[in-house]
Amino acid sequence: MIRVLFAAPAKDWEEYRDVLPKAITDAGIEAEIVLETREPETIAYIVYAPSSRLRDFAPFINCKAVLNLWAGVEKIVGNETLTMPLTRMVDFGLTEGMVEWCVGHVLRHHLDIDRDICRTDSEWAPHVPPLARNRSVGVLGLGALGSAVAEALAALRFRVSGWSRSPKALPNVDCFDGDAGLNAVLSRSEILVLLLPQTPGTRDLMNAERLAAMPQGSVIINPGRGPLIVDGDLLSALDSGHLRHATLDVFRTEPLPSDHAFWSHPKVTVTPHVASDTRAGSAAEQVAENIRRSEAGEPLLHLVDRGLGY
Amino acid sequence: MIRVLFAAPAKDWEEYRDVLPKAITDAGIEAEIVLETREPETIAYIVYAPSSRLRDFAPFINCKAVLNLWAGVEKIVGNETLTMPLTRMVDFGLTEGMVEWCVGHVLRHHLDIDRDICRTDSEWAPHVPPLARNRSVGVLGLGALGSAVAEALAALRFRVSGWSRSPKALPNVDCFDGDAGLNAVLSRSEILVLLLPQTPGTRDLMNAERLAAMPQGSVIINPGRGPLIVDGDLLSALDSGHLRHATLDVFRTEPLPSDHAFWSHPKVTVTPHVASDTRAGSAAEQVAENIRRSEAGEPLLHLVDRGLGY
Repeated sequence: MIRVLFAAPAKDWEEYRDVLPKAITDAGIEAEIVLETREPETIAYIVYAPSSRLRDFAPFINCKAVLNLWAGVEKIVGNETLTMPLTRMVDFGLTEGMVEWCVGHVLRHHLDIDRDICRTDSEWAPHVPPLARNRSVGVLGLGALGSAVAEALAALRFRVSGWSRSPKALPNVDCFDGDAGLNAVLSRSEILVLLLPQTPGTRDLMNAERLAAMPQGSVIINPGRGPLIVDGDLLSALDSGHLRHATLDVFRTEPLPSDHAFWSHPKVTVTPHVASDTRAGSAAEQVAENIRRSEAGEPLLHLVDRGLGY
Repeated sequence: MIRVLFAAPAKDWEEYRDVLPKAITDAGIEAEIVLETREPETIAYIVYAPSSRLRDFAPFINCKAVLNLWAGVEKIVGNETLTMPLTRMVDFGLTEGMVEWCVGHVLRHHLDIDRDICRTDSEWAPHVPPLARNRSVGVLGLGALGSAVAEALAALRFRVSGWSRSPKALPNVDCFDGDAGLNAVLSRSEILVLLLPQTPGTRDLMNAERLAAMPQGSVIINPGRGPLIVDGDLLSALDSGHLRHATLDVFRTEPLPSDHAFWSHPKVTVTPHVASDTRAGSAAEQVAENIRRSEAGEPLLHLVDRGLGY
């Protein structure tokens, strides 16, 4: 019998109380799950949400791994007390939800659906968009989420370009890397989707210069991380008419403060960090699988590289 | 040298004047294309748009086929002077445009994008939709367009049910036919897409009874033909709260009269017959291929069955 600490806000436990014990049992592991403990040395695994109050991992001297429930680990990767292996969540619910949100918003901008949804007149004025095969879409970041989004867009016949730090190859996607590759993707993307992790290297990536490299009238969609974009530079690019629209799901401060200019800007759509949410059922299965692997001496899935930051 | 009459409004010729002669030449046919003629007996083929003024086909005694530029043939199929073979347009531009429009609007309703686009407050209120794998979408009509739409939705992992007059089989789509099958599809479809042809059998299909068979809070999307829906019954189902929304691209009268209730109804989105438009380049290739086939004695593509009406 091993002990697992579930370190996450109480509302998360409501989602996991039914599915996590079952998933661990189904993985062949006998475990006791606790929500808090006065005996940190008895804990073998910590299932962790970065919104948890737990910040000091030092007392957990026998903890074999911290299993993060979120895809993003930027709030935890620099924690010096966290010396045990750290995994991040890559579950099918997360990926599928992200694909659906991204494809939905890319098609929305491709078809210019807003003009029909928000219409206040009754003017019959047909506007036929180009076919997807004649529309260039860029995806920055080709990890699990970015790759899945790029492939789904390519399946709909969009002209898809992708960019990643290290070279990648994906079917039906023009893949680029490095600084020159970034400019190539930016300069051709009528619609650009940001799915990079938040690292020192990606912070403030989309500044005035890189926004200016995008085509006149293009659209930026950010379901990645807020600090990828310099907010003021984005607002300037929208106000000047260089960019047509920005659809943003993530922000430097969340919830987005009610007085932030994004809320009321006519060329900005704010969605409240809903592009993708970990689904308890599939997430629980991945947590259980990693406990099983650890107990069996097998390598963990989705181990975080502390140097890269993801 | 054969003579081809291009019977369509002048604005259509602007689109086809470059691509149609080239496509016919590329098919190995020597042809002269005329926009009108006083010698109808000299015409071998009529390339036809139902918006043309040509209604009397009787003088074209040597015409081997009428090649319709539109997918819909309901304005022409009952014309008793049209005794030669009639083909309809099934081109990749038409299909791809329809897939993009349908998938875009299905995802829009699936994700409930409207609440974010049309927001006037600055309230951070996350709403995470179910995954597509837990969302049931129905497609009525499994011809070239309906099949392509159903398959694209299934590729995004929606639970897709399809219905057609005659039995069909599609991968990853639950296919139904007949009256019992129609009720099965209606009763499970949270989002319903109408892609049936307009025939006496489909006219007024979506009446009060069939709308009532749909689940509470469901959405109807009509890129097919206006008369598939009884307008007043749809408005009643929206007003009662039984249906959540209707997104309509086609209407009994087009352009939709400016005083029609659809324009201003808060639960109706009107798009001005843009779901799919024949693209001149790919349409010209299909016309040329059918002329080549006819001259070579091969069967025509997409021949209309006058009895079925499509």
